[in-house]
Amino acid sequence: MEKTKFLLDESQIPRSWYNLAADLPGLPLAPTLSSVTGKPLTRDEMAATMPEPIADQELSTERDIEIPEPVRQLYAQWRPSPLYRARRLERALDTPARIYYKYEGVAPSGSHKPNTGIPQAFYNKEAGKTGLITETGAGQWGSATALSAALFGLTAKVFMVKVSFQQKPYRRALMESYGTVCVPSPSPETAVGRAILAADPDSPGSLGIATSEALETAAADPSLGYVLGSSANHVLLHQTVIGQEALLQMALADDYPDVIVGCAGGGSNLAGLTFPFLGAQLRGGPKVRVLAVEPAACPTLTRGSIAYDYADTGRLGPLFRMHTLGHEFMPPPVHAGGLRAHGMGPMVSRAVEDKLIEPIAVGQTSCFEAGVQFNRTEGILPAPESTHAIRGAIDEALRCRAEGRSRTILFGLSGHGHFDLVAYEKYFAGNLEDEAVSEEQLDRAAASIPRQPGAAS
Amino acid sequence: MEKTKFLLDESQIPRSWYNLAADLPGLPLAPTLSSVTGKPLTRDEMAATMPEPIADQELSTERDIEIPEPVRQLYAQWRPSPLYRARRLERALDTPARIYYKYEGVAPSGSHKPNTGIPQAFYNKEAGKTGLITETGAGQWGSATALSAALFGLTAKVFMVKVSFQQKPYRRALMESYGTVCVPSPSPETAVGRAILAADPDSPGSLGIATSEALETAAADPSLGYVLGSSANHVLLHQTVIGQEALLQMALADDYPDVIVGCAGGGSNLAGLTFPFLGAQLRGGPKVRVLAVEPAACPTLTRGSIAYDYADTGRLGPLFRMHTLGHEFMPPPVHAGGLRAHGMGPMVSRAVEDKLIEPIAVGQTSCFEAGVQFNRTEGILPAPESTHAIRGAIDEALRCRAEGRSRTILFGLSGHGHFDLVAYEKYFAGNLEDEAVSEEQLDRAAASIPRQPGAAS
Repeated sequence: MEKTKFLLDESQIPRSWYNLAADLPGLPLAPTLSSVTGKPLTRDEMAATMPEPIADQELSTERDIEIPEPVRQLYAQWRPSPLYRARRLERALDTPARIYYKYEGVAPSGSHKPNTGIPQAFYNKEAGKTGLITETGAGQWGSATALSAALFGLTAKVFMVKVSFQQKPYRRALMESYGTVCVPSPSPETAVGRAILAADPDSPGSLGIATSEALETAAADPSLGYVLGSSANHVLLHQTVIGQEALLQMALADDYPDVIVGCAGGGSNLAGLTFPFLGAQLRGGPKVRVLAVEPAACPTLTRGSIAYDYADTGRLGPLFRMHTLGHEFMPPPVHAGGLRAHGMGPMVSRAVEDKLIEPIAVGQTSCFEAGVQFNRTEGILPAPESTHAIRGAIDEALRCRAEGRSRTILFGLSGHGHFDLVAYEKYFAGNLEDEAVSEEQLDRAAASIPRQPGAAS
Repeated sequence: MEKTKFLLDESQIPRSWYNLAADLPGLPLAPTLSSVTGKPLTRDEMAATMPEPIADQELSTERDIEIPEPVRQLYAQWRPSPLYRARRLERALDTPARIYYKYEGVAPSGSHKPNTGIPQAFYNKEAGKTGLITETGAGQWGSATALSAALFGLTAKVFMVKVSFQQKPYRRALMESYGTVCVPSPSPETAVGRAILAADPDSPGSLGIATSEALETAAADPSLGYVLGSSANHVLLHQTVIGQEALLQMALADDYPDVIVGCAGGGSNLAGLTFPFLGAQLRGGPKVRVLAVEPAACPTLTRGSIAYDYADTGRLGPLFRMHTLGHEFMPPPVHAGGLRAHGMGPMVSRAVEDKLIEPIAVGQTSCFEAGVQFNRTEGILPAPESTHAIRGAIDEALRCRAEGRSRTILFGLSGHGHFDLVAYEKYFAGNLEDEAVSEEQLDRAAASIPRQPGAAS
């Protein structure tokens, strides 16, 4: 039999998360600033709004951070996730490239997000919280929160960007099946939501607005823990189980990637897959080219500025130094998938600044086209988010064909598209368009980036 | 770490399918009758409508039938499937029982159906067909056909029971994503469909009608191969990879089932899981109690007759000796899941006659309740079909608690519910009801069972 699937044993689930901060050359990561004082947030200030172990992880520069056994136990429900060689896709592309993909859709909620949902639920439960509060864009993170809360016997409430809430009724239904309450955002439940609805009753919502609503709700009730699905250092950290497993699996395949491709929204899936490889490179291992593929409708890395900015529209949370389009940015409503954050995870931004990661932006119709080709050869319907990585990987493989050169390409298949069939229907009906974001839209959003976020900037 | 997942290596994918016909005590299986002659179908008559290897499998009494390597290669995409110990469910039920489940939702289309879709596509491609034709009820089989056709570069057309086509738009969208054409049945495309529409333009359709439409379409074009998703001997045979793997996995768990529970529509998932265990029992191995759980809305095993009947409403196909409600039976439209066949697979019927399998019928609301409890403890949203097995397993576990007795329960989790969220939404909204089928309805449908199907009956 041709080897197409590389599996690991449960005992090979990583025992620690990998922290790129330990291996970054040069200056330490820029600190996160308090929105109140404008100064770097201290560990104790952080621990006032999140469980202590998470605050410690957020600030840590240790290379390896131990994974608690109850978290590994739940990881074992679906981890280690499989790594596949895409031989049928290779043949369809007639490419000399070897293409591999690490598949995170085997998680019960269908994406990589429970890798951080489970530990965040664990730490919040340990800290005595009885419920979780969060925001979600297209719904992958909300579903992961719903799953994680259910497994720890916690309640959950998810503020979901209204346009996605309307476009993706089955994401909401999935969350509800786990017992979670899902609220379209902006909502009348919070001061932030009411203010936005007063100004624009038809606001489609944005991840920044939903984040403000979640933060406001959590701040008002000490029994609730705010959890988040991307960008933050501890979230990226939790996702590194992906890349650590992939390193072992590439060794099983007796191969090593020349190029790794990931889709990028807030950066957690990209970081999870690539940081362990980048860490190996920084410690003297093989050099790997890392491609971050983002949607042209939300071009944070390719057209944003590096600056201190808020992660939320209501400016309730702290300021991060990151690639940002401005916290008032909203992707055009035609954009069907996730990857809709205005700001990138600070650690990913830093890796882009350090030229460890190369960003590109692609239009959604070419991504769906790649996703359909993948589905019809490999058999797995990809999430619209993941099609960005597939597009990038196929283009690399076609370049190999044009150059008559073999390369090893690894990409992250971050989730399946079972809850995204409305978007596929639109694509097949020819009703999905690419909308380039105009310079004017970008300028308007960029004006929301604070000029003087604090002394430390 | 507590052991909750039992995995096998790719090399342990079975090399042959297991045929219960080799081990059945007493008389051989009753033959299938030609609808033209009323006499047993010969091997050559069968081979006129299906690839020769499938005709041979349909009639075989060999115990082990070799799986072609290209089929095993594609099985390897998701097989061996995992077997789980449901420890969190056990704790929630406070039961001394040990509960295991074999999970087939890891297949790319989300159910056990590709286990037979892949070999049927393979044999049809080998026989020179360029496309596949079939019917589907709730959509699991149609999706599996779509996947299997795509992987072999075949076209596919699926006649989908109209009420399901309307209730489950995302099943259709999934099929289309693989390049399959999905047609609501009854349709104006066939003589059978046109006749039914003329009599009742609002006909909700039935599996029997869709089957007739598929058979008529395939008969009119020799380049197309008719494939089917349940009931037939060769289909049950292909599914036995499930139970063969489960035997190895129960050994890994150092345990053996006292009870095995499966949901039953046409019987393929039930047979696939249980026949290898029943075969072991018939050859002198441990005795196992097998429960077939069917919907009260389609009570084939519990309220049907054993008789020769057609599998299709239009009487185009042959006659099978089986439990049947009559080929004009239609489940009440409130029934949300699959398991809507009026007739049971002849081999399963025989095993029920031989007291190897014990049938029970349950209402759908209690099944959804069990499914939600399972989802919130084990984290996996089950297909409505599979919730019947979960209901049966939970009831057995509760009986263990009441009796203060530990038993080992294994059930088949035949698929996930990602495409069934409309039904879950209805359930949560309190809009899902149980509809018992009245004696009068049963009598009316039973009148369609032929009195004298042929000399052999």
